[in-house]
Amino acid sequence: MNRDPLAHVRDLFDLDDDVVYLDGNSLGAPPKNVAERVQEVVKHQWGSRLIRSWSEGWWEAPERVGNRVGRLVGAAAGQVVVCDSTSVNLFKALMAAVRSTDRSEIVVDAGTFPTDGYIAQSVAELTGLALRPADPDRLDLRDTTAAVLLNHVDYRTGRLLDMAALTEQAHAVGAKVVWDLCHSAGVLPIELDALGVDLAVGCTYKFLNGGPGSPAFIYVPTRAQQGFHQPLTGWTGHQVPFAMQPDYTPDPGVSRARVGTPDILSMLALDAALDVWDQVDLQDVRAKGLALTGHFMDLVRDLPGIEVLTPADEWRGHQVSLRHVRAGALMDALIERNIIGDFRAPDVLRFGFAPLYNTFEDADRAATTLKELL
Amino acid sequence: MNRDPLAHVRDLFDLDDDVVYLDGNSLGAPPKNVAERVQEVVKHQWGSRLIRSWSEGWWEAPERVGNRVGRLVGAAAGQVVVCDSTSVNLFKALMAAVRSTDRSEIVVDAGTFPTDGYIAQSVAELTGLALRPADPDRLDLRDTTAAVLLNHVDYRTGRLLDMAALTEQAHAVGAKVVWDLCHSAGVLPIELDALGVDLAVGCTYKFLNGGPGSPAFIYVPTRAQQGFHQPLTGWTGHQVPFAMQPDYTPDPGVSRARVGTPDILSMLALDAALDVWDQVDLQDVRAKGLALTGHFMDLVRDLPGIEVLTPADEWRGHQVSLRHVRAGALMDALIERNIIGDFRAPDVLRFGFAPLYNTFEDADRAATTLKELL
Repeated sequence: MNRDPLAHVRDLFDLDDDVVYLDGNSLGAPPKNVAERVQEVVKHQWGSRLIRSWSEGWWEAPERVGNRVGRLVGAAAGQVVVCDSTSVNLFKALMAAVRSTDRSEIVVDAGTFPTDGYIAQSVAELTGLALRPADPDRLDLRDTTAAVLLNHVDYRTGRLLDMAALTEQAHAVGAKVVWDLCHSAGVLPIELDALGVDLAVGCTYKFLNGGPGSPAFIYVPTRAQQGFHQPLTGWTGHQVPFAMQPDYTPDPGVSRARVGTPDILSMLALDAALDVWDQVDLQDVRAKGLALTGHFMDLVRDLPGIEVLTPADEWRGHQVSLRHVRAGALMDALIERNIIGDFRAPDVLRFGFAPLYNTFEDADRAATTLKELL
Repeated sequence: MNRDPLAHVRDLFDLDDDVVYLDGNSLGAPPKNVAERVQEVVKHQWGSRLIRSWSEGWWEAPERVGNRVGRLVGAAAGQVVVCDSTSVNLFKALMAAVRSTDRSEIVVDAGTFPTDGYIAQSVAELTGLALRPADPDRLDLRDTTAAVLLNHVDYRTGRLLDMAALTEQAHAVGAKVVWDLCHSAGVLPIELDALGVDLAVGCTYKFLNGGPGSPAFIYVPTRAQQGFHQPLTGWTGHQVPFAMQPDYTPDPGVSRARVGTPDILSMLALDAALDVWDQVDLQDVRAKGLALTGHFMDLVRDLPGIEVLTPADEWRGHQVSLRHVRAGALMDALIERNIIGDFRAPDVLRFGFAPLYNTFEDADRAATTLKELL
């Protein structure tokens, strides 16, 4: 492979060359076109067209931008909608997954990002099901398992789970699987449709670069839409929202996952940010991501006091997690030296590599600086 | 009263003088400073500071901007948080209001904005309570009523309800009251604290001019915070979000109403939009709003085929609703002539008067054009 087939893509981002930004797994950097687009939205669409813009593209933006995200996660059009936060979408997905079930438990990856576990706990309490945290290597699914909630990439270690095998495992006992793609969307080709995934959610502000707190997405495959009932029955999920009918009739399609009025500024900033993806192939992104993280791990593996938590094989995302007893102080010192990663208590340093804008020089500079500090 | 004590405030808005914009009850116009602020957020805060901005003001923005909204609705600091959509906040508020109740019904204003009714229906189903729609003039509250959900201003007629009397009515039978302030925030002085309101929600994109789909707010008074438990237990509502604890412990204060990662672009656009309110007194806004709507109603009351739905007395918001058998076609024709109001099926024309930027000339031009069309 060409060492960096995506080198030209970095020019599409607004990045300071003095900074080595390795936190795109937490907040992606802004593509250059976002600032201009947002300006156009504020000044022209909102300022000049005012309320008329709702019928000039705003109303359908959640589905239209959803289709663009869908293309990146293996979902054909009409199955992804962009709305709300990941946590809120998790609530919808889990409530829908266990609705009317006669089964008794929800299983959640024991190392899940906390919000997933909190929401799963809340859903379990509301529905009277039990919540069972389990190691993804030993899920021990049963005919009493209603749904399994899994993180495609572990936020702490960067480990990538086998979506195909685990989806099959869930289906083998008749359980539904909900995948959280926060740390894998934009990292590698995902095949939601092909794998028969039941439901999925994800955020757009990490590797998709949508901006701080940009709206999340939810995937409801066509075959599941008619049976998808979620309790956040806001008016924009109604079949005929502007009829202002007294009773709620959900939209027949994925729009039934919508709730309130869509947040247009952030939605269209995300829309602009997604333009970058029209120019790249996810296979190239994945190849470069593995190369970058592999290169960085090779450089830091033998540093004193460092334990690499991220798998050395291909079962990893684009984040390298290192354990060190003084991780917090080390990350502060790195950031002072313009090497920006992040710290997860109590002892984990995380370095996210975004193949769209990170370079092998970034990896070298980060490793060299870390070595100096140690 | 000086005929227009707020005339100078219009200069703070980016408005085309050829357009008579009377739809601020649906989407407020942008204050001029919003475009520049958003640019600063995208280019500097996101682009240059990147992830560091989370600890340079972003994380606390929901509470900080919440306090600014709180000042406009009579809530002392620490009781309002800006987050999610109105529908999602309604869900939290109603679920919290009826949690652990031994009462059997939720009462909702029968003419409520549909989303309120849909969410109330969903909460009733989840909790096993009955939902009873009732005329706000005959709520017939009982000792079986757990909670009442009321719209401060009716979206269809523009009628303003008596918050003091209705809150007292609810409390007299031991019921909690949840107020939806979507059409009254920024319209008149509201006294949530003084009236002992239990919970309130509202949007920020109408009379507060926060931008299309800008995040909504929720009011949880200090005395109610410890007992406020809502099922959207996202990580940002946790007492120590970054401790990444496996169990959910809600923040002791209003932040327990937060769910997912806050949407910063829209939040800070709203923050900029709120600057306008630092220069105005809500008493002046109210006086001008009543004068504008009164003047407009006087001009159109006797037009052929027109029925004024909005109360002639002071129990109205800043919106005038007119019924006409050809309302849809009339609104289309008005919009073609740059008089922008909106249409609500089947036969209502709505004209919102935003005292911050609408003028008496706006009212004259709208009335004259409507007369010509009739």
